[in-house]
Amino acid sequence: MKRLFTLLFLILSINIVSSQEEETDKDAFFIRSIYDTALTEGQAYDWLMYLTKRIGGRLSGSPQAAAAVEYTRQVMDSLNMDTVWLQPCIVPHWVRGGKEECNMISQRMGTIALNCTALGNSIGTGEQGVSAEVVKVQDLDEAEKLGKEGRLRGKIVFFNGAFDQKQVSTFAAYGKAAGQRVFGPTMAAKYGAVGAVVRSMTNKTDDVPHTGSTVYRDGHECPAIAISTMAADKLELAMESEKVRLYFKTTCENLKPKLSYNVIGEIRGSEYPDEIILVGGHLDSWDIGTGAHDDGSGCVHSLDVIHILKELDYQPKRTIRCVMYMNEENGLGGARAYRDSSNVRKEYHLAAIESDRGGFTPRGFTVDGHEDTFNPMFKNMLEWQTLLEPYDLYFERGGSGADVGVLKDQKGILIGFLPDSQRYFDYHHTPIDMPDVVNKRELELGSAAITALVYLIDKYGL
Amino acid sequence: MKRLFTLLFLILSINIVSSQEEETDKDAFFIRSIYDTALTEGQAYDWLMYLTKRIGGRLSGSPQAAAAVEYTRQVMDSLNMDTVWLQPCIVPHWVRGGKEECNMISQRMGTIALNCTALGNSIGTGEQGVSAEVVKVQDLDEAEKLGKEGRLRGKIVFFNGAFDQKQVSTFAAYGKAAGQRVFGPTMAAKYGAVGAVVRSMTNKTDDVPHTGSTVYRDGHECPAIAISTMAADKLELAMESEKVRLYFKTTCENLKPKLSYNVIGEIRGSEYPDEIILVGGHLDSWDIGTGAHDDGSGCVHSLDVIHILKELDYQPKRTIRCVMYMNEENGLGGARAYRDSSNVRKEYHLAAIESDRGGFTPRGFTVDGHEDTFNPMFKNMLEWQTLLEPYDLYFERGGSGADVGVLKDQKGILIGFLPDSQRYFDYHHTPIDMPDVVNKRELELGSAAITALVYLIDKYGL
Repeated sequence: MKRLFTLLFLILSINIVSSQEEETDKDAFFIRSIYDTALTEGQAYDWLMYLTKRIGGRLSGSPQAAAAVEYTRQVMDSLNMDTVWLQPCIVPHWVRGGKEECNMISQRMGTIALNCTALGNSIGTGEQGVSAEVVKVQDLDEAEKLGKEGRLRGKIVFFNGAFDQKQVSTFAAYGKAAGQRVFGPTMAAKYGAVGAVVRSMTNKTDDVPHTGSTVYRDGHECPAIAISTMAADKLELAMESEKVRLYFKTTCENLKPKLSYNVIGEIRGSEYPDEIILVGGHLDSWDIGTGAHDDGSGCVHSLDVIHILKELDYQPKRTIRCVMYMNEENGLGGARAYRDSSNVRKEYHLAAIESDRGGFTPRGFTVDGHEDTFNPMFKNMLEWQTLLEPYDLYFERGGSGADVGVLKDQKGILIGFLPDSQRYFDYHHTPIDMPDVVNKRELELGSAAITALVYLIDKYGL
Repeated sequence: MKRLFTLLFLILSINIVSSQEEETDKDAFFIRSIYDTALTEGQAYDWLMYLTKRIGGRLSGSPQAAAAVEYTRQVMDSLNMDTVWLQPCIVPHWVRGGKEECNMISQRMGTIALNCTALGNSIGTGEQGVSAEVVKVQDLDEAEKLGKEGRLRGKIVFFNGAFDQKQVSTFAAYGKAAGQRVFGPTMAAKYGAVGAVVRSMTNKTDDVPHTGSTVYRDGHECPAIAISTMAADKLELAMESEKVRLYFKTTCENLKPKLSYNVIGEIRGSEYPDEIILVGGHLDSWDIGTGAHDDGSGCVHSLDVIHILKELDYQPKRTIRCVMYMNEENGLGGARAYRDSSNVRKEYHLAAIESDRGGFTPRGFTVDGHEDTFNPMFKNMLEWQTLLEPYDLYFERGGSGADVGVLKDQKGILIGFLPDSQRYFDYHHTPIDMPDVVNKRELELGSAAITALVYLIDKYGL
């Protein structure tokens, strides 16, 4: 009797093993098909060329943002999804105004123009500009210290913290430096400064200024610009030997908030329609470039996920939803509207994937979640590692994305697509984030990587 | 007594464990220092700017190749190595002559100019050019078949095999397609063709022609050019509906071989000076660009390995030798001279590392070797995997490099540096392989990756 059980057990085990192997083979084959489709029939690059060349920079509230809503809705309509809709949201309407000017006034060197750009959300100086002696700080802590000593009053504060080049991940360097841009100007204003100038957020030494949003707190506002890293180095050098004054002029304005939209499409799941797998990027971009990497790439990645699954006649078990978020750059109006609507409808996002780190060669995914549910879900994902290794993809713990991050309370898994990071901050928020800096194959491999992950989550759950 | 032994065993085990952990910590710390140095004090980028901007394209036998020999010798002299020397070698001296021309002559469309470049080593057409009806083939097999049927006689053979876009590694696609360029023209000549035209070796659809060497066998020679992929597509399209003639003119020539040099420097090992760890790239490049990725990057990577180890006051146990090979592109004259000299002196290369896949973000290393010794050596390398994982580096079995590959009989390990491959064939052998397409940090990360590997091989052997 015992022998019979042993035999039965062996037979069953072999069946289970062979069935597992069969599934693994099927998965490997399907993932290979995903890559083949992305690399030969992917649409991401064509869509990106339209978004960047035909529409251009798409700041919230701009005509281009409205065009991007209409364009991606049309693309979704063409993809034969079950539902496509626009989700209203309120977004800030900041406009840059005329070309900014910044001059460094040094006794020894005279007046030297510095390449600059107004920070998003910043108030303008008006036509008269602002002029004052410069005080340099390395970070928010130093600004706070000098502020408390009264040394920022009437001054222009120059936040000169550079990227830490030793960080292999450029996002780690950005994470350490970006606080200056976001909260530096409001801190400067709090201590009586009349303006703030921020060193551009980049690893590169060049003459390209990087914009990005700044946030005023408690009504402490002063005009704020970023200057290129070369300009920052010049200013720093001049300040080593003498007192330096700065003049800058910006005519940007915060107009009244506007109605805009997230663009959403979904394929309804055949077995578990209430488990949503979201894949998205943000439609809006800064106005000074065309948002090719940030985040045109993430948008077309997400659309291509749907396109590739449709090309392969894949019918998902779970609901796959593609979201073009509005207003990631300066307010998260779209992300909040999406979250609020989702919570009201008591939806559950099993997984929410954002692509917002550019269209470079994929390295893998950063994975985040709610502390109550994260560990077992992440453990399940790690079992797919061998299927993704042929494509050099790995999972690591880490932040997901600004838009999907707000869904954490739904206790699903939150995922950020992670491409190679070395060139991202060469272009981020600049006039050179243009179509020509995106490589077609690198972009397509991103579509494939995200689609492969969506397939595995859909098939196995978490 | 038994207890005592058990106790002793436990104590010894703990000591061994703690000593292993200590070494791992030291290694991790040293590798971190290597990366810090490469990213903040690396010289690779500056040297590359000199090689590409001040010297330019460095084809074997050219004045620029001679300048590159002199320049890198001076760099090595500045690095405080134990010995620096020039190693003579004989190299082909092929010159391009004047600007090439290629016209497609179609009855329907008239005469259309196609962007072209002569293939290296090719004979020229002379000023009169060559003109004939075109026969298209997809690969060498088809050419051979048509040739045997007598259908290539008097014709220009158009080798139109495209890169397989489904290959994630672009080198895999190149490996499948490059045979057309290398052996297509000689095969065409063997069957009586008067010329050969090859589709450019690239994933991209653009109007940039890619040169590269062709090899004539058994005296079968005909003039050969490459045309851009857009030109190839045009030609293919035209041939679908009518017979098309091609005219092309090249004035390239094979002059008599010249004396040139490999540039070599070494730091002699303190404990095992007879075990050589070689790190190298090739100094020569095609003439139509500046060889920024191919292989300026590999040269400056190799020089930077020495620079970084010196900066960190590292005294190697084994001999570390840096080699700037001459003539990888069209003859391997330098590689053969190096090998022959090394064999005569009965040297042993424990490891030979070549960087010749560009200056992109590192993915790891491909590892090759002699069948007698490969497996245990490779197994030892895999034990370093955890130390290299924080830098996203992995080892895989695969070819090393054309210059170091000829050392296989010494039974050491042969290694190719493996960066991200997606953009390599956008630039390979073209006029746009220029300094601006190399990213400083990506290049520096390559120097760091190779230095880390050299450190581990030097410390632990294989």
